[in-house]
Amino acid sequence: MDMTPLAPSKLALVPFVSVANMMRLVNAIGPEQVMRDLAAYIEEDFRRWPDFDKTPRVASHSAEGVIELMPTADAENYGFKYVNGHPTNGRTGHQTVTAFGVLSSVATGYPLLMTEMTLLTALRTAATSALVGKYLAPKGATVMGMIGNGAQCEFQALAFRAICGIDTLRLYDIDPAATEKAAKNLTAQGFTVTKCRSAEEAVEGAQVITTCTADKQYATILTDNMVGAGVHINAIGGDCPGKTELHRDILTRSEIFVEYPPQTRIEGEIQALDADHPVTELWKVMRGEAEGRRDAKQITLFDSVGFAIEDFSALRYVHDRVQQGEYAQMLDLLADPDDPRDLFGMLTRAG
Amino acid sequence: MDMTPLAPSKLALVPFVSVANMMRLVNAIGPEQVMRDLAAYIEEDFRRWPDFDKTPRVASHSAEGVIELMPTADAENYGFKYVNGHPTNGRTGHQTVTAFGVLSSVATGYPLLMTEMTLLTALRTAATSALVGKYLAPKGATVMGMIGNGAQCEFQALAFRAICGIDTLRLYDIDPAATEKAAKNLTAQGFTVTKCRSAEEAVEGAQVITTCTADKQYATILTDNMVGAGVHINAIGGDCPGKTELHRDILTRSEIFVEYPPQTRIEGEIQALDADHPVTELWKVMRGEAEGRRDAKQITLFDSVGFAIEDFSALRYVHDRVQQGEYAQMLDLLADPDDPRDLFGMLTRAG
Repeated sequence: MDMTPLAPSKLALVPFVSVANMMRLVNAIGPEQVMRDLAAYIEEDFRRWPDFDKTPRVASHSAEGVIELMPTADAENYGFKYVNGHPTNGRTGHQTVTAFGVLSSVATGYPLLMTEMTLLTALRTAATSALVGKYLAPKGATVMGMIGNGAQCEFQALAFRAICGIDTLRLYDIDPAATEKAAKNLTAQGFTVTKCRSAEEAVEGAQVITTCTADKQYATILTDNMVGAGVHINAIGGDCPGKTELHRDILTRSEIFVEYPPQTRIEGEIQALDADHPVTELWKVMRGEAEGRRDAKQITLFDSVGFAIEDFSALRYVHDRVQQGEYAQMLDLLADPDDPRDLFGMLTRAG
Repeated sequence: MDMTPLAPSKLALVPFVSVANMMRLVNAIGPEQVMRDLAAYIEEDFRRWPDFDKTPRVASHSAEGVIELMPTADAENYGFKYVNGHPTNGRTGHQTVTAFGVLSSVATGYPLLMTEMTLLTALRTAATSALVGKYLAPKGATVMGMIGNGAQCEFQALAFRAICGIDTLRLYDIDPAATEKAAKNLTAQGFTVTKCRSAEEAVEGAQVITTCTADKQYATILTDNMVGAGVHINAIGGDCPGKTELHRDILTRSEIFVEYPPQTRIEGEIQALDADHPVTELWKVMRGEAEGRRDAKQITLFDSVGFAIEDFSALRYVHDRVQQGEYAQMLDLLADPDDPRDLFGMLTRAG
């Protein structure tokens, strides 16, 4: 393993934020503040939605899971994320979801930043949910039921506290060890936490219900009788073709809000509905061009699948924070011959 | 700039091949041998073409150029390349084409290798051309005309010598400085080189014609009268919508061979033809399921645009070569908590 390559030129180098440095950055700012900041960046980008070059993510499915590329671009920057989803990875000590990403200059095509995005995805996913909650959750909501207490759970809770004022959590997971883990972490963060023995118990008295499970299959985490009037449902887990969490009857009773319809129709809860079932695009709500929550009785549903613009916003945020050079190593990623046409000469001179 | 992050666990680390290490690797093996090896890997993968999950690359176009993601997968591995093409980058000292890529495990979604691919793309593009030349160039060909003497030129020449026996080159570029650069490099490599003052002069007596220019527009590099019977045309440069190099009349006189029709129809020389104009897929030629060159009079044309499987083969090759740990740094790319569900706990414990 060689750690001291030849000194490359400045154009060759791309700042790289490792997992260790991302943890340092997030801990220095504080996770709740990072998610507040991320929500502001995401909101800013959602409000200029038409500026983006958009495409559904490019997914490669296998029996074990999925690997996806999520690109988007505005006039100035191009961003993409590599992300996997492998529900049974935990059995071998691997993460269900890992990710990394790159922000580039549209003008030159050169990467400006490469960063770990496993942590960043957890943060941006929760920031997006809470940002949407700001528009859709009932006024004065303080209690959130959380079904699925895996890696995303604590981030959701902190984001909903930072942005929506949630301070009380009702946790349920099919695996009690996951609930124990989340309860311990979240009690230490100052939440009032109830560990529940069923999904039914977890949603009792909750104004917001977050579903966040990882099975790659149709699973009915919430049934119709569990969802009362006025609730906001934050459905995170259904994000693959063939993977949903909610009973169809909940969908037909809800006002459904989505990120990018061409992707959500394929991957989201609304797979279960007709292709022309009405949904509201969140960027329009954030621009004031569509209505969010209309009244206290309405059931609102954020059918979250995660869209490339959220990663773009997160990449922009990290890029803005590491420009001083702290938190980044410089990677010798790009060949940079003195004469751009003389790539071969660079190679032979190095030999 | 922090170069000494916390020690991450083994699952967090991904081997990274920098530009400097790629140059060390290629110089240690020798560029011609690397391209012979790459051609063998590419041929092996083309011969099992139906095993791959294939999609046209995902391109983001701007006025200045294009940024593309090129994914593919077999049952075991997933690979993708990030690559840009910015024809005017040279004006600011940037490369027209830069690239990097990742090879991953389909079973876990975890990256196994991250590598620079600017050099690797130059090598695999030339290796592919020469591999195709092995099937299509006229027997006993020794003279190649090369129009466009930029960064790809020398790699093409060396690959065609290593695989097809080309030893004599006729070089032409609209910029005489590019021809000077290529002539100097290739004379030093033992080729017989003629610097030509026009494209017409460059193709005189050539059995193989390589066109490799970078303009992002329709440009007629070769006109019909320049192409005699029996020639093999290796058309590298036309690889964007709106970017071609050959006059349409050459196409209609030629037997056209392509990598992946759904992508070549959009990006290649055959943009100029009807969508159902017959083309031959190279993987079928390599499997013996389609004919290559039929006779000495035929004009054969490789309408090269570059396909993801070639990058997959190149990633496989590099992965096989760096497994011992030499030529790679270990990147702390993947968050790896002790309990995969306790991503938040890992973050707070680091703080």
